[in-house]
Amino acid sequence: MGLILNLKPLFLLISFFTTVSLISCHQHHPLDPLTPSEFVLVRTIIQKSYPTASKYNLTFQYVGLDEPDKQTILSWQSKAKHSTKTPPRRAFVITRFDKQTYEIIVDLSTSSLVSKKVYQGHGYPLMTLEEQVVAAQLPLTYPPFIQSIEKRGLNISKVVCSTFSVGWFGEQRSERVLKILCFYTNETVNLYVIPIEGITVVVDLNELKIVEYHDRFIVPVPKAEGTEYRLSKLKPPFGPRLNSVQAVSPDGPGFKIDGHTIRWANWEFHLGYDPRAGPIISLASIYDLEKQKYRRVLYRGYLSELFVPYSDPTEEWYYKTFFDCGEFGCGLLAVPLEPLTDCPANAVFLDAYYAKQDGEPVKISNTFCVFEKHAGEILWRHTEISIPGETIREVRPEVSLVVRMVSTVGNYDYILDWEFKPTGSIKVKVGLTGILEVKGDKFTHTNQIEEDVYGTLLADNTIGVNHDHFLTYYLDLDVDGEANSLVKRNLVTKPNSNHTSPRKSYWTVSTETAKTESDARIKMGLKPSELVVINPNKKTKLGNDIGYRLLPGSISSPLLFEDDYPQIRGAFTKYNLWVTPYYKSEKWAGGQYADQSRGDDTLAVWSLRNRGIENKDIVLWYTLGFHHSPCQEDFPVMPTLSGEFELRPANFFDRNPHSAAWQYSGVSGGGVIRWFTVYGVMMLSRSVSSTVISVAANSS
Amino acid sequence: MGLILNLKPLFLLISFFTTVSLISCHQHHPLDPLTPSEFVLVRTIIQKSYPTASKYNLTFQYVGLDEPDKQTILSWQSKAKHSTKTPPRRAFVITRFDKQTYEIIVDLSTSSLVSKKVYQGHGYPLMTLEEQVVAAQLPLTYPPFIQSIEKRGLNISKVVCSTFSVGWFGEQRSERVLKILCFYTNETVNLYVIPIEGITVVVDLNELKIVEYHDRFIVPVPKAEGTEYRLSKLKPPFGPRLNSVQAVSPDGPGFKIDGHTIRWANWEFHLGYDPRAGPIISLASIYDLEKQKYRRVLYRGYLSELFVPYSDPTEEWYYKTFFDCGEFGCGLLAVPLEPLTDCPANAVFLDAYYAKQDGEPVKISNTFCVFEKHAGEILWRHTEISIPGETIREVRPEVSLVVRMVSTVGNYDYILDWEFKPTGSIKVKVGLTGILEVKGDKFTHTNQIEEDVYGTLLADNTIGVNHDHFLTYYLDLDVDGEANSLVKRNLVTKPNSNHTSPRKSYWTVSTETAKTESDARIKMGLKPSELVVINPNKKTKLGNDIGYRLLPGSISSPLLFEDDYPQIRGAFTKYNLWVTPYYKSEKWAGGQYADQSRGDDTLAVWSLRNRGIENKDIVLWYTLGFHHSPCQEDFPVMPTLSGEFELRPANFFDRNPHSAAWQYSGVSGGGVIRWFTVYGVMMLSRSVSSTVISVAANSS
Repeated sequence: MGLILNLKPLFLLISFFTTVSLISCHQHHPLDPLTPSEFVLVRTIIQKSYPTASKYNLTFQYVGLDEPDKQTILSWQSKAKHSTKTPPRRAFVITRFDKQTYEIIVDLSTSSLVSKKVYQGHGYPLMTLEEQVVAAQLPLTYPPFIQSIEKRGLNISKVVCSTFSVGWFGEQRSERVLKILCFYTNETVNLYVIPIEGITVVVDLNELKIVEYHDRFIVPVPKAEGTEYRLSKLKPPFGPRLNSVQAVSPDGPGFKIDGHTIRWANWEFHLGYDPRAGPIISLASIYDLEKQKYRRVLYRGYLSELFVPYSDPTEEWYYKTFFDCGEFGCGLLAVPLEPLTDCPANAVFLDAYYAKQDGEPVKISNTFCVFEKHAGEILWRHTEISIPGETIREVRPEVSLVVRMVSTVGNYDYILDWEFKPTGSIKVKVGLTGILEVKGDKFTHTNQIEEDVYGTLLADNTIGVNHDHFLTYYLDLDVDGEANSLVKRNLVTKPNSNHTSPRKSYWTVSTETAKTESDARIKMGLKPSELVVINPNKKTKLGNDIGYRLLPGSISSPLLFEDDYPQIRGAFTKYNLWVTPYYKSEKWAGGQYADQSRGDDTLAVWSLRNRGIENKDIVLWYTLGFHHSPCQEDFPVMPTLSGEFELRPANFFDRNPHSAAWQYSGVSGGGVIRWFTVYGVMMLSRSVSSTVISVAANSS
Repeated sequence: MGLILNLKPLFLLISFFTTVSLISCHQHHPLDPLTPSEFVLVRTIIQKSYPTASKYNLTFQYVGLDEPDKQTILSWQSKAKHSTKTPPRRAFVITRFDKQTYEIIVDLSTSSLVSKKVYQGHGYPLMTLEEQVVAAQLPLTYPPFIQSIEKRGLNISKVVCSTFSVGWFGEQRSERVLKILCFYTNETVNLYVIPIEGITVVVDLNELKIVEYHDRFIVPVPKAEGTEYRLSKLKPPFGPRLNSVQAVSPDGPGFKIDGHTIRWANWEFHLGYDPRAGPIISLASIYDLEKQKYRRVLYRGYLSELFVPYSDPTEEWYYKTFFDCGEFGCGLLAVPLEPLTDCPANAVFLDAYYAKQDGEPVKISNTFCVFEKHAGEILWRHTEISIPGETIREVRPEVSLVVRMVSTVGNYDYILDWEFKPTGSIKVKVGLTGILEVKGDKFTHTNQIEEDVYGTLLADNTIGVNHDHFLTYYLDLDVDGEANSLVKRNLVTKPNSNHTSPRKSYWTVSTETAKTESDARIKMGLKPSELVVINPNKKTKLGNDIGYRLLPGSISSPLLFEDDYPQIRGAFTKYNLWVTPYYKSEKWAGGQYADQSRGDDTLAVWSLRNRGIENKDIVLWYTLGFHHSPCQEDFPVMPTLSGEFELRPANFFDRNPHSAAWQYSGVSGGGVIRWFTVYGVMMLSRSVSSTVISVAANSS
């Protein structure tokens, strides 16, 4: 995924939309992201630890919370009501200095540096926005590039360049570099649809200078007619008018936000922010009406990696196999959400902060929105007409709570949603929209194409290149406690041995508990099976295993050779689901240092230890995958392509948690309309109705 | 699926909700369902055709539109603007008289009977509500049954009985019968959770009398504590209060309804009603802004059959393998929708009519609702920060149009949605809710269970029996015209032969056109493949095939033996997708006469002819399947279990049809917020922001 940018402008807050500042005065939750003042403190402490002169060469590649151990958090939480003492706050920092990567831990309570060591392994940390901005500007003053642009009859002042991670393809030594591709902004702001092909520019990130340059061939740059997408600039024909209905909640939001803790309906959870992962949901617990207490479901859930390999093996495109979260930072690239369009009118917005390259905090306004979703769906209903003398209709409209962030990684916009339902379900959704990454080519009609062009002709000289998106989620489920097991509930066909009936077959459920990691490397969809995380130490009153099901969305698996370099680095996508025992250090499926990684620190490698996962604190790693072979409708902007998966209670509760009496505020009430009629009367009213009908009909 | 009922009471209209009468004075569309006056006319004509005395033994099992030939409709439509003459109106009627099934065609234009013949084949028509009501009451006055109830220490006055279709299990002769199961209504209206097991009652529908009776065993009837679901009757603990936000559209509905034709945004389609199928979407066309005309997508789409086999082979349950649409009538069982809960505040409601057993029309108020859905989703968006001096953010909130009907087949409520999007997508959704079909048993804890109980213990003495739901949709796609082909776009891995790059592999698309029916019997999910219906006679300007993709939802296939009787009758579920050439008579996947059918008239049989389907007018038959192994959360009412599939344009348009300028009414505008800043100024505002931050932080 390419990245071009000026530094982010400050979002102008529209005052009449609620915005909750995350730095309101509240007691710190130990999982709260670092505050601006903490960023400043971290920066000061770390700068002190380097020779003063070097302050200006020191770069902060990652600054985030060094989260306390799980046990510390859990015991803090269990005591929370009694004690107010929070566990020590620590920051984990990755810096670059003098061509080396440093891992630093800072203790914020004692304002001291806990540890600082040079990282010796393969791969590099997140790239900063600032170094990418500088790198992207280098070609514009680089004579050979200026020449290449003139040779193409283009105007250098209309060229904009973008940074691309280079991956790893078996090199023994690899410097910290990135590649630059440039685009033309000719009468459109949709620059991604005007790539300037044939040129390779490699920038060394230590020196911030161009170290390799080729100009191999010229293809016409797409004219990009009609690719403008700004409403203000568009000309007829105009589309129809759409009704922008807006959800209104007369009583204001039905949820409460206390610092980073959000409470709504029967749910309570903590919303964190990380520059790499973006939103982090922690300690999601649901209130059990019968047990009269909150029961934990998810200790921690977030997007661990986003792997996007393109399927074009040619010299200029082969390396495009991006790890968007690990190389560019899915949280770092969060964009301010726009009230009324990115989120509905009843949304509340939250800001977030990250550290710039120099360690200074930067605010991203409206990073998250939180809203009650009313899509016109039905949570449950029944009409009962069998009780003599009454008709019963009970309907509950669906209301859910959505937490949303949008990460714009260059051309692509990723909509990341977490949706909580009163029934106990958590839906994790992703929407892919924005602009396709297209390739310039000589073709203007498919009948000119004789060989594989690795994609679809979308416009003159414009190929939409085939690619995948693999979103790997970290899901540390704690189903009613830490010790859990993964159970496969296989649906199997049986012959009917019971000869009192002519039925020949039926299906039943045979369960299988995953004992070690290898039992839980699962390719989904091959046979009918339900995947349930149970707590083997607890049962329902009736004796069923207390559990939560993982319901996959549409299932996609990698199509590259296993020994192909991108697939070695992205080996964590080989299975749709992996399960590992909880290890604090195992956070990033693609490894801590994803940029130019060699696949030696991925989920696939950790899992080789084949550790025990039965009745243990386990972590699920689920990959939501998309194969994207573009079509013309994806151009010049992509209609949102969506995927989702669901965590749904399965014998977690003794009954439907929403079948008890829940009050609905406002007009919709409980949905009971009843009247008493005796059979005869009903017949009467019916015949009346049909008389009425005939009259009406005759009159028509 | 069982069915118990008093006849439907008339729904009391709440006046301030818009209700559009389908019998408003408008020119008839040839696909309009029969009007009340037409029902009356049909009845008169048909009654005349039988000996007068017999009028009272004559029953109308099905009365529906005998739709004109497709060519007649299409040529009428092409002329519609010029001529007002509609094709002749005909009704197709199935009656029962003197133990025989009659197929009758009536011409309404000439008020004459066109044809009347006795049906000699296997199987029986839809059961009428009235005969089921009478049958369900027979046990209550049947001495052996009264004895059985007393033996169980129950009170006959609290017993309610229900009718169940019997299926077919290899019998040579089969009378027209149904089975009766009874339930107890002890302190709950949730009678389905109190089955009275062990008793078999068979009723002959010709004689309407009990012809077989067994009482094999007694198990305690479930106490059904806490199974009441009416808000008005519920006791603490109470659930949290939910905010019932309601969508409001200040400008009123953005769609127009003219008779049965609905126009919204770029869509135009006809909404019909059939007692068997329920909603029928016809002539769905989408306006092409560039071509400045409507282009047809779907000629006709509806739910053709709903097969629900239970997985309990025991003597009392083995036969439960229901064809809900073909035996009971999914349209006949439509229930009045409740404003604000079944459909949001901005919904408009439509009525429908069916013929009673005596042929008289009956109105179902609020059969359909139509509403603009605003779920807070994003249709497309992009934030662009790479253009020096400006930040661009274009966001389009998603608005779609939903048509909804709910069919309550005894205990289950099926929510049937058709959703149309401005991007050209049609989503077909189904929601399963209501009450599970449970079995009484002796168990009160899983540790007492030693053998398979064919389901899950959900409460004391209550087993939720394993079962499936297979919804087979009829989809006569006309992608920009009738002549279409099904193309499989297989994603295949290729080695990289191009040695200018170190990349080893990539994937590409290899297409395959289905020539005959056998090429298009598809089990989905086995390999990565896209299914596209193309119009081989038309191409986009760029030369791509004009097409629409079928995107499946979660995929489920039958688990019964192929030679098991229910699977012989339900053989049309063997593949997730079938394609047939259009044949007017091939409408019902399970056959015209589904009740006690023998599988000799199913889609699976028609398809054996292996007809040509390339560049033909083709029909897709897609099955949306669910395996349902109940869990405690499904009790005492089921949270909605949803499934869906999508028809999405794939090179149907030359570009994203929504990327042009569409006006949004109301507050949300086009979603453009832009401001101009120069690099320096942005730096300034950023440093200001971080200063502000530190202050705020210090003060906290």
